[in-house]
Amino acid sequence: MEVMQLLHMNGGMGETSYAHNSFLRRKVILMTKPIMEAAVTALFSTAATTFPTSLAIADLGCSTGPNTLFAVSEIISIMINLCKATKHELPEFQVFLNDLPGNDFNTIFSSFLPRFQEKLSEQMKSQNGVSTTLPCFFSGVPGSFYGRLFPRESLHLIHSSYSLMWLSQVPRGLEGNRGNIYMARSSPPKVLRAYYEQFQRDFLTFLECRGQELVVGGRMVLTLLGRRSDDPSSKECCYIWELLAIALNEMVSEGLIEEEKLDSFNIPQYTPSPKEVRREVQKHGSFSIDCLEVSEVNWSVFDSDFDPNVVSEDGGYSMARCMRAVAEPLLVDHFGEEIIDEVFKRYRAQLADRMSKEKTAFVNVVISLKKIA
Amino acid sequence: MEVMQLLHMNGGMGETSYAHNSFLRRKVILMTKPIMEAAVTALFSTAATTFPTSLAIADLGCSTGPNTLFAVSEIISIMINLCKATKHELPEFQVFLNDLPGNDFNTIFSSFLPRFQEKLSEQMKSQNGVSTTLPCFFSGVPGSFYGRLFPRESLHLIHSSYSLMWLSQVPRGLEGNRGNIYMARSSPPKVLRAYYEQFQRDFLTFLECRGQELVVGGRMVLTLLGRRSDDPSSKECCYIWELLAIALNEMVSEGLIEEEKLDSFNIPQYTPSPKEVRREVQKHGSFSIDCLEVSEVNWSVFDSDFDPNVVSEDGGYSMARCMRAVAEPLLVDHFGEEIIDEVFKRYRAQLADRMSKEKTAFVNVVISLKKIA
Repeated sequence: MEVMQLLHMNGGMGETSYAHNSFLRRKVILMTKPIMEAAVTALFSTAATTFPTSLAIADLGCSTGPNTLFAVSEIISIMINLCKATKHELPEFQVFLNDLPGNDFNTIFSSFLPRFQEKLSEQMKSQNGVSTTLPCFFSGVPGSFYGRLFPRESLHLIHSSYSLMWLSQVPRGLEGNRGNIYMARSSPPKVLRAYYEQFQRDFLTFLECRGQELVVGGRMVLTLLGRRSDDPSSKECCYIWELLAIALNEMVSEGLIEEEKLDSFNIPQYTPSPKEVRREVQKHGSFSIDCLEVSEVNWSVFDSDFDPNVVSEDGGYSMARCMRAVAEPLLVDHFGEEIIDEVFKRYRAQLADRMSKEKTAFVNVVISLKKIA
Repeated sequence: MEVMQLLHMNGGMGETSYAHNSFLRRKVILMTKPIMEAAVTALFSTAATTFPTSLAIADLGCSTGPNTLFAVSEIISIMINLCKATKHELPEFQVFLNDLPGNDFNTIFSSFLPRFQEKLSEQMKSQNGVSTTLPCFFSGVPGSFYGRLFPRESLHLIHSSYSLMWLSQVPRGLEGNRGNIYMARSSPPKVLRAYYEQFQRDFLTFLECRGQELVVGGRMVLTLLGRRSDDPSSKECCYIWELLAIALNEMVSEGLIEEEKLDSFNIPQYTPSPKEVRREVQKHGSFSIDCLEVSEVNWSVFDSDFDPNVVSEDGGYSMARCMRAVAEPLLVDHFGEEIIDEVFKRYRAQLADRMSKEKTAFVNVVISLKKIA
């Protein structure tokens, strides 16, 4: 089965089907709000003289879950405030929610969207005292963002959170990555290169497609899992998968998994450094960089700084659940259904152990781009 | 439960959830192809000097079934031929598939759409000898067409088949319609008026919304169940429901259904005459009428003219199945699950009896409109 399809098999279970659960996605969107605010404001002031009567927004990799519409709701509230401050009339919003064809759009359309629209009109009522409905039109767009999804110059604003680190496929040439399931310290240079080259191809394709779809002056705010370091096998981005590899290797040594099976399993992800992201954007040439930042979000679902007592209460449970939502379809497809509970029991123990001993965090790379040509 | 939601409860069963099965929808789309061809050609020649680089098309009430994409595929093939004949470059297509939020969009996205896109690129390949993909971008738009669905002046072409005879709600004031479930010869004038007024309100709302969404010069081709006669209780449009009423009344007389239950059940549909459709369009004023026609499609799934021997082989089965797809959710909601099989057994017998004795057909009203202001 195709990797991109697999990433979505858990979509109906109320988890996002990408790397993170709803809670993390929400947290990251809140963290990047200032960057989105700056992007929307800039878009708004560019277009001030010929302000479009409708604003087309796309959320790429929206997934299905209670926070599917969170990014859109933040963008709309930024726009409402801006229009109020600048005394502009609100434009009509056209919102495109994109994800792979296997994503559960039915639940978005029949459950999350009606609730969202209800909340939105309540908000409009409480702010303006009158019951006006915000003209906001939603569509679901099925398809991979590593291909064209929209007509030329039809979008003003693109958002994507926690989706773009997923590659379009497992890179070729990973045969030497024995005992590992992702880039790791012990991965041969050839393997690291294969991962990087797949990322370069995919990210350039992404930029090329979005460059065609955005209007000149349009903005794009992307958040993806990444790293600070120049080293692609750096612990900050690879450790989460190394712990899963430990669990799987244990099971190989106990004869529960065949060694060759493990050797041929690799995660189709790449966690780039800001430098690598910048390089591809510059190579492509259709975008200028308004902002490029790195931030962190704790593995722990608690927002506190590292506190072993607090973390151990959770016992790695939330983190394992979150990682299971994304990794399970990939694992089931490769190893079969039977071993899954055991894998995640062991993975959870690994996670709990690490989280009780050190501060563990995901590194996010956030980039805000302007279409220039 | 809301009527509009109920119309879609069968959506996942491979039947269209409106009044007709896939086969009938396909047949009607083929029958109206010359009208669609004329509309697209007119749209094309109007826009010839500033031909849009992308063409936005909406299919309203697309339903879910093997023929969901049939209308779109016809429109695209008309466009391909036109571009060839006029040596224009093909525009990019943006196709919006609309239906109620309860429609099964997942199946469209994950099953029918990929197959359609595959077929489309094969077609392009066989026609042009090169493997170019047609730039055709699909979205699903959940919502009632008795409200705004798209931004202002964002569509070029709107199509809708066999959806617009459904009212937004059961009309109020039908208390006197005892023993009937739709307009009938024995319905009091007050009941006929209530039905007509609901149609007028709904159809005007529809025109108002679409008028805002279409570009000036944009086209709209609508097919709905209707009648030739000026009499709203005419057999040509009411008989199909009268036969169901006969089945239900039988069951009342046998004590299987309570009389009050039947008296409070009415079908939320209106089958207008061309004159009534014309009147609303003229009243509204934003559209000119390019074409207004009446056509017929046999109840029988066979294309032949009336032949009692052929029809009786089918024994009303296909027709009962087709009507069950649309009426079952309404009946279950009102009468409960238990009586359904019995109702359709009797309904099927009524249908088979009628179809063996006379030529029975649906009347279609087809209207092609141009947005003028």
